[in-house]
Amino acid sequence: MQVARTIDAVRRCVAAARGAGKCVGLVPTMGALHVGHVSLIDAAVAHCDFVVVSIFVNPTQFGPNEDLAKYPRPFEKDVALCEESGADVVFAPSPEEMYGGGGVTWVTVEKLTAPLCGRSRPTHFRGVTTVCTKLFNIVGPDVAFFGQKDAQQAIVIKRMVADLNMPLEIVVCPTVREADGLAVSSRNRYLSERERRDATALYRSLETCREMIEGGAKDAGEIRAAMVAVLEEVPALAIEYVSLVDAETLEEAEQVAGHVLVAVAARLGPARLIDNIRIQAPALH
Amino acid sequence: MQVARTIDAVRRCVAAARGAGKCVGLVPTMGALHVGHVSLIDAAVAHCDFVVVSIFVNPTQFGPNEDLAKYPRPFEKDVALCEESGADVVFAPSPEEMYGGGGVTWVTVEKLTAPLCGRSRPTHFRGVTTVCTKLFNIVGPDVAFFGQKDAQQAIVIKRMVADLNMPLEIVVCPTVREADGLAVSSRNRYLSERERRDATALYRSLETCREMIEGGAKDAGEIRAAMVAVLEEVPALAIEYVSLVDAETLEEAEQVAGHVLVAVAARLGPARLIDNIRIQAPALH
Repeated sequence: MQVARTIDAVRRCVAAARGAGKCVGLVPTMGALHVGHVSLIDAAVAHCDFVVVSIFVNPTQFGPNEDLAKYPRPFEKDVALCEESGADVVFAPSPEEMYGGGGVTWVTVEKLTAPLCGRSRPTHFRGVTTVCTKLFNIVGPDVAFFGQKDAQQAIVIKRMVADLNMPLEIVVCPTVREADGLAVSSRNRYLSERERRDATALYRSLETCREMIEGGAKDAGEIRAAMVAVLEEVPALAIEYVSLVDAETLEEAEQVAGHVLVAVAARLGPARLIDNIRIQAPALH
Repeated sequence: MQVARTIDAVRRCVAAARGAGKCVGLVPTMGALHVGHVSLIDAAVAHCDFVVVSIFVNPTQFGPNEDLAKYPRPFEKDVALCEESGADVVFAPSPEEMYGGGGVTWVTVEKLTAPLCGRSRPTHFRGVTTVCTKLFNIVGPDVAFFGQKDAQQAIVIKRMVADLNMPLEIVVCPTVREADGLAVSSRNRYLSERERRDATALYRSLETCREMIEGGAKDAGEIRAAMVAVLEEVPALAIEYVSLVDAETLEEAEQVAGHVLVAVAARLGPARLIDNIRIQAPALH
């Protein structure tokens, strides 16, 4: 496995693979890799002949008061994990390599970036869509792999790819969870032992929702209230949103029907945690 | 020469050419082709093995009160001209083919799009950058060709390509002029015989500027005043801007030095006309 620090270097690696007729997969990450990322690399290795993992803590997707400086960067451990998982190249550029010219160009997706995480992170998604556009243009993958854990991000990226006719396929892989249901996240390492236990409330609220819908509940307000009650059992949790939205348009529905995204976000001590599930609810009659 | 009406069709043509190891050139146009466009196709044929000319009157780069509906669309004549000029494919999609899904994604270039034409056409350049991104992603050219006539557009596109690491080269070709200096433009056909004669004032104002700088003039205000005087000799011309700016940053300079873009825009009857020249002025001491 090679580690490419520059755009030219990774392009040379990919050009060689493409010259050999290989299908190229990209797993874009910010490093601090965990079993969730490994599941994305596994999917890429299964789908593609040549797998690039990018490791780049992208400054443009962090807000001014967010955790850019303290975001974990265990680079050597990350590289070892990529190699063990069967990646062919790690692309790990510096911020200067990615934004050295002082970029003035943004890729923005309207509407889909306004609700959910967009409300508290107004510049986050344009940072994500811009850096993903750059990574797609640098690597030129046939397929890129994202996690369902960041549900809104996956929906926004898929929409950007479709709207701009980007010549690649987006594959969204299932959320990986701990034994107690907590969605695996690089930010879980910010949590104390007590907070780590409290954090399971997010998943429990989602399971409450699933059970209610499976039991025939349709009123989004009623389901939402039950979810909030589960979260409020943990006083340390500061709820940011609890939303039931159309899984494609991200519009809130009063009645639950069709493909629904149920998403929660909350602050817990030093961490901001998000989680979600997708549910196929019966159509309304 | 083939005419491709769909994204899939043009992609098939280009894939076949690329499979044969050909270098692919793209000339993006809105049709109503004239000798200026032909010079771009000539450059593409000279540089590349396989040339795609796109003909698409892009609605997103027209403002609400601009000439989208009446913009000329002499399609059969355009196709014949492309064939005569040695193009391999004309890509002529419908608005539905390009924006059928109701796009919510924009590519925007900040700063460079604010001055000059950006002042009177605030949504124009995001339409241009978004459709060019789409065309680049659809066709996947090695080189794309633009005219110096639309100087700000060329600078904005080059910056977008650099900022987003788009894997292609931008070539900017010289402005083609009529015998009396008028820059060739699809919008010249909006002019009456009288207006056509009046329109030469734009070029004369640029020549005045060139002569002054060659004669040692350095004060931008003084040069600008002389240019305005030339334009004001034609009462029918409504000046929109007369600007001397840095040719890379588009910032106005008080003293003329280095690489300067001199650009003018004016309304004349039903037409909005623009023209420019680039001048390498001596450095300031």
